[in-house]
Amino acid sequence: MDIKGFSFSAVEAAIKKPGRLDLALIVSETPAALAAVYTTNKVKAAPVLLGMERAESGLCRAVVVNSGNANACTGAQGMDDARETARLAAERLGIDPGELQVASTGVIGQPMPMERVRAAIPALVDGLSAGTLDDVAKAIMTTDTFPKMEVRSGMAGGVPYTVAGIAKGAGMIMPNMATMLAFIVTDAAVEPSWLRSMFRDGVDASFNMISVDGDTSTNDTALILANGRAGTPVIAADSADADVFVAILNDLLLALAQQIVKDGEGATKFVRITVKRAASIADAKCAAMAIANSSLVKTAFFGQDANWGRILAAVGYSGAEVDQGRVALYFDDVQMVRNGIFIGGDAEVRGTEVLRRNEFAVTVELGLGSGAATVYTSDLSYDYVKINADYRT
Amino acid sequence: MDIKGFSFSAVEAAIKKPGRLDLALIVSETPAALAAVYTTNKVKAAPVLLGMERAESGLCRAVVVNSGNANACTGAQGMDDARETARLAAERLGIDPGELQVASTGVIGQPMPMERVRAAIPALVDGLSAGTLDDVAKAIMTTDTFPKMEVRSGMAGGVPYTVAGIAKGAGMIMPNMATMLAFIVTDAAVEPSWLRSMFRDGVDASFNMISVDGDTSTNDTALILANGRAGTPVIAADSADADVFVAILNDLLLALAQQIVKDGEGATKFVRITVKRAASIADAKCAAMAIANSSLVKTAFFGQDANWGRILAAVGYSGAEVDQGRVALYFDDVQMVRNGIFIGGDAEVRGTEVLRRNEFAVTVELGLGSGAATVYTSDLSYDYVKINADYRT
Repeated sequence: MDIKGFSFSAVEAAIKKPGRLDLALIVSETPAALAAVYTTNKVKAAPVLLGMERAESGLCRAVVVNSGNANACTGAQGMDDARETARLAAERLGIDPGELQVASTGVIGQPMPMERVRAAIPALVDGLSAGTLDDVAKAIMTTDTFPKMEVRSGMAGGVPYTVAGIAKGAGMIMPNMATMLAFIVTDAAVEPSWLRSMFRDGVDASFNMISVDGDTSTNDTALILANGRAGTPVIAADSADADVFVAILNDLLLALAQQIVKDGEGATKFVRITVKRAASIADAKCAAMAIANSSLVKTAFFGQDANWGRILAAVGYSGAEVDQGRVALYFDDVQMVRNGIFIGGDAEVRGTEVLRRNEFAVTVELGLGSGAATVYTSDLSYDYVKINADYRT
Repeated sequence: MDIKGFSFSAVEAAIKKPGRLDLALIVSETPAALAAVYTTNKVKAAPVLLGMERAESGLCRAVVVNSGNANACTGAQGMDDARETARLAAERLGIDPGELQVASTGVIGQPMPMERVRAAIPALVDGLSAGTLDDVAKAIMTTDTFPKMEVRSGMAGGVPYTVAGIAKGAGMIMPNMATMLAFIVTDAAVEPSWLRSMFRDGVDASFNMISVDGDTSTNDTALILANGRAGTPVIAADSADADVFVAILNDLLLALAQQIVKDGEGATKFVRITVKRAASIADAKCAAMAIANSSLVKTAFFGQDANWGRILAAVGYSGAEVDQGRVALYFDDVQMVRNGIFIGGDAEVRGTEVLRRNEFAVTVELGLGSGAATVYTSDLSYDYVKINADYRT
């Protein structure tokens, strides 16, 4: 991957336990335009509070990120630790500490093992010449089973550029915003205020449309850095190349979001839930999210049970406007429900065949208007319970 | 139990499968004052739609209830089936079919096996002399592992009366209202409009304060019948005996609600979640419900992991006003968190001891006002997944 003016590094600091990469660094040679979206949880981790403060400037040179400890619910000490981490990295990089973002993911409520972070920072900075974005993707994993990276390329003013992104997810995955870390870097030049609004829209249409377990974390952070080092003209809202850039970025964000769902804790199914013909887009999203977050629906997916009744029940309590006599429901292209009741025939057999697939779609038509939304979710398996019953041990 | 003027019956109609009681009848000798609360789900089962229509009169003579089939998402045929069930029972009882309530619980979306219901009704009615309320409690069970019954007695105008209630729960348990059936009978005489408002308040403080899995069913129904056959004076809002009646009824409703949680699908823990010192009662309830419905919190309970960070995260995304620096958290009497951070010392060890108990309390103090609420919940275990992955098979 050729992404100009960015370098990457990841090391083992043994933050939770030894044996894996858990501290990583992304550096832009020159100050990059920054757009960032943080968790809406009112209990925010220290690095989120620090990041929100620093994102005001709209500029960023580097991101330090660790897994294994969320640095959340750690009070004033947690803020001091996040600041110190930024300062130590900045000093070794020879940049202003205010140009650094810090992100953390892992266990909530335990102090950062700063002695190990301090010891690891020199090697972290010194490894920048050899590291790759893929190393960073590995270092931010917690219960993730594979690293998540997507790369796209485009042209602006005849100049090629690259957009690359990594993410981690697995648990505490629920919109506002989806519970995860995501870091996007591009060497395109992008007008900063447009970057912010476009990135927020892109996050709304991707990370905010997935749910693994309905829990919103204290640490969610999605960042994009655009450093312009590819030499493109500045892409702005009214540029000829704007639409292509938006399309590329949104495609990349959605692909990362889908990877998070596919790697949901204990997931055995990847399900696209679309609600159509709702009274409004908000109703469609709300009904789709209710389906995606229903423990009964998700256990039925795990059991490969074409239990459409639970899906209708979830739509019914979602808050969306529903006239049960108008509802239709499909598993992939197999219609199960028409006018609110079971369609009969061999639908049960054919629907069950769909549920045996690793990936399938659930489509609900409400017959009330033109609102539509798609949400991506996983199932609820024994392994989800196992992973989360044992997480801290 | 001596409850005057009521008789009970339960038979095996083999509605889902043979081998258990699944069709039951409650009859009052004389028309009883009726108060009823039904599901808020917009997808409502046929018996709920029928019951809502009939509850307008404020009077009821009998309730026919079946388990094994919810008669939900069954369209016009489902309405015909519910009406026919009421009519057949009414004919054999020699009463007006409009005085009957019908309730169903079980699988959604399958037609009622009316040939088996029709065949069972004569024996159901004829069994009234021999049946007990306990038989009815058994007949309404689905994935419940034990029947739920509570009995209380009181005095009004010097005359003793009895209040008895049964309930079923287990899955699809979430407020508005808690997903279940509950039938309360009393031989006290109660002024009908006061009965309605008091019963709604009682349901709000009991069944609407429990959650097993956050799913609200299509069939929730709670009814109270008061037939006055004990010979008490009519108890009304301004009666000398009103407070005692309200206290008895609320105590009974809360006890039934707690039984439902204790028998939650796969439950190994019974947890009282209290949020105190919230900015408002609504905030306290909303934060307590977010904790109760968090899959991550519930799997930590199952794993006996004193993972208070997940509880704080749930409070943070609940929508309640939160200042994380003011939050305190206790497992029973063991304080874990003060001013938003871990208290240190031996709290981890002592908190883990609390989590090993079968029943314990989680108390969160927000430090913002005087709002308080308590919600009752269970954990999320392998068995919850197992029960619901296999439910229809």
